Amino acid sequence: MQVDGRRQRTLWPAPGKNALHVIDQRQLPHRVVVERLSSVDEVAAAIRDMWVRGAPLIGATAAYGMALQANADASDAALAQAHARLASARPTAVNLAWALQRMQQHLCALAPGQRAAAAWVEAAAIADEDVRTNQAIGRHGAQLLGELAARHGRRINLLTHCNAGWLATVDWGTALAPVYQAQAAGIEVHVWVDETRPRNQGASLTMWELMQQRVPCTLVADNAGGHLMQHGQVDIVIVGCDRVSANGDVCNKIGTYLKALAARDNGVPFYAAMPLSTLDLSLHDGLSEIPIEQRDARELTHVSGRSASGEVVEVQLAPTDCVAANPAFDVTPATLLSGLITERGVVAARPEALWALAKEKV
Amino acid sequence: MQVDGRRQRTLWPAPGKNALHVIDQRQLPHRVVVERLSSVDEVAAAIRDMWVRGAPLIGATAAYGMALQANADASDAALAQAHARLASARPTAVNLAWALQRMQQHLCALAPGQRAAAAWVEAAAIADEDVRTNQAIGRHGAQLLGELAARHGRRINLLTHCNAGWLATVDWGTALAPVYQAQAAGIEVHVWVDETRPRNQGASLTMWELMQQRVPCTLVADNAGGHLMQHGQVDIVIVGCDRVSANGDVCNKIGTYLKALAARDNGVPFYAAMPLSTLDLSLHDGLSEIPIEQRDARELTHVSGRSASGEVVEVQLAPTDCVAANPAFDVTPATLLSGLITERGVVAARPEALWALAKEKV
Repeated sequence: MQVDGRRQRTLWPAPGKNALHVIDQRQLPHRVVVERLSSVDEVAAAIRDMWVRGAPLIGATAAYGMALQANADASDAALAQAHARLASARPTAVNLAWALQRMQQHLCALAPGQRAAAAWVEAAAIADEDVRTNQAIGRHGAQLLGELAARHGRRINLLTHCNAGWLATVDWGTALAPVYQAQAAGIEVHVWVDETRPRNQGASLTMWELMQQRVPCTLVADNAGGHLMQHGQVDIVIVGCDRVSANGDVCNKIGTYLKALAARDNGVPFYAAMPLSTLDLSLHDGLSEIPIEQRDARELTHVSGRSASGEVVEVQLAPTDCVAANPAFDVTPATLLSGLITERGVVAARPEALWALAKEKV
Repeated sequence: MQVDGRRQRTLWPAPGKNALHVIDQRQLPHRVVVERLSSVDEVAAAIRDMWVRGAPLIGATAAYGMALQANADASDAALAQAHARLASARPTAVNLAWALQRMQQHLCALAPGQRAAAAWVEAAAIADEDVRTNQAIGRHGAQLLGELAARHGRRINLLTHCNAGWLATVDWGTALAPVYQAQAAGIEVHVWVDETRPRNQGASLTMWELMQQRVPCTLVADNAGGHLMQHGQVDIVIVGCDRVSANGDVCNKIGTYLKALAARDNGVPFYAAMPLSTLDLSLHDGLSEIPIEQRDARELTHVSGRSASGEVVEVQLAPTDCVAANPAFDVTPATLLSGLITERGVVAARPEALWALAKEKV
């Protein structure tokens, strides 16, 4: 991805392998602030406080957290403690648990003296694999967009929710990778961007990265998508996902389910971009089994933005002492999905298809 | 309604009948600011800039605007000009056109010398009728809530979108009148309040008035309603409406349609509170015929709130120069409605039922 015209990833290790650089995404779109994280505590805080967010990026960041731990103390006990600490930073994203387990298994098989060096290599491998995965998702998704463009003979309007873009991954994004690949292939795509309350990741992150990349895009309220679909202004919806159960139910940012309902009601194809690391075959029924993170009411009652004088400040929107509930994710039943865009191609959101894919994986 | 414990309407004429008092709702929930409007221009600006909003309140406010015009110059030409000026202040609400036409017809039948006095009487009649209408809607809606409470044997959870409460009318509200009447009748109701982006009328107005009235209520993101319904946490949805076509399609705040889809998907009853003045029998198909107001992109890219120092300030949420689209309303197809709560009782959202009701009216 381009940032101010320069190709860049969303995280990169310091040359001395003693720290990890990440973008503090809470400052976007107003400022690009790069932070240096040099301990497990700092990495856990960056994940918990959402300096970094998005399932794949959280996974890669946590992997580097384990590498920082291996630098400091590579004993089994210390790695187990770091694993637990990082795993508890965010409850929903399955990639976090997946990346941590992979790191720990890999390191614990080695002699303690070899672990630090190996940890940086393994974390880099996780990051590189994420990039390759997203490029593949992008290719398969861009093919869908190309087919739609050919069928309609005009620019395609895609709607997305939250940020499953470059900023949610190490590079390219998941839901937005098809857009970037389509752009590279000369397929014209315009993106409707849900602002994505309450944290406004669409308004602040997705709009920012699409504008950096010069993709035509329009910000809309989360409330607007149904109206746009009723009037033929959306050709396809692509969202990301935080966890997908074996029956194809998709857990993603709160509000995704409402867009899926509107897509079905208006005959608009609805896809989730799903790296295989997001598939959780241990869950049979996403709707009843995926735990939903309840976040701070303050995300709803207050909002941060840039004041007239240029500082980023927080303002209160709701009455003082108002009660607010803030479920962060919802689950879209598999029946509402046209398919899942994976690195191996587009698959049906159905148990048979997902188990077959998982077998291939082994 | 109670404000700081004192019974009050949302607008009232000055004792000397030379001005109208309204609450500048843009300052809520942070400050209760009463403004004095003493000319047609000021009334038109208050409607256009949404100091007052909500179809019934806009209608009553515009009626008093005509009375202010009759004070200044009650000639046919001056009244016609005031009518046109006020009618163009907001494009969607049918009550605005209805109240203005009623005022003009009434006044033009009188000698110019009698018009000023008659105008204040007629505007007061429009306001009083709104109060009676809303009380009746409240009675019919509270009966629905009472039946639900009896069936479930527990407190009822109602979800509402935007503000169709006291603040949207002269008193009581439309969608919230049933809640207030249920409260008076000892039926326990808890209200989920959609924050209602982009103008946050739920967070700032509905939460404020429910809290003033001590009704249990919880603020949620517009994105959350589907998730709540999937988990049995919503027993009924009641929204207001800005215009209803002869086939029962309901035009209301953007995002209403998405909640109606979720209600259908989860077997939750979905009602719109509709004063008969909101019914527009000249339109056969709401979805294709009701014009949708496109509002300023800045409502989406910027937001006002109270800063740490207590002032109300505006902050920027989205990237500078981002493109935003802001349709203010959407149309919920009649097939998604369980019924319309009118001052005459609950009716089906179907052409036969609505035409029958209109005939009764005559």
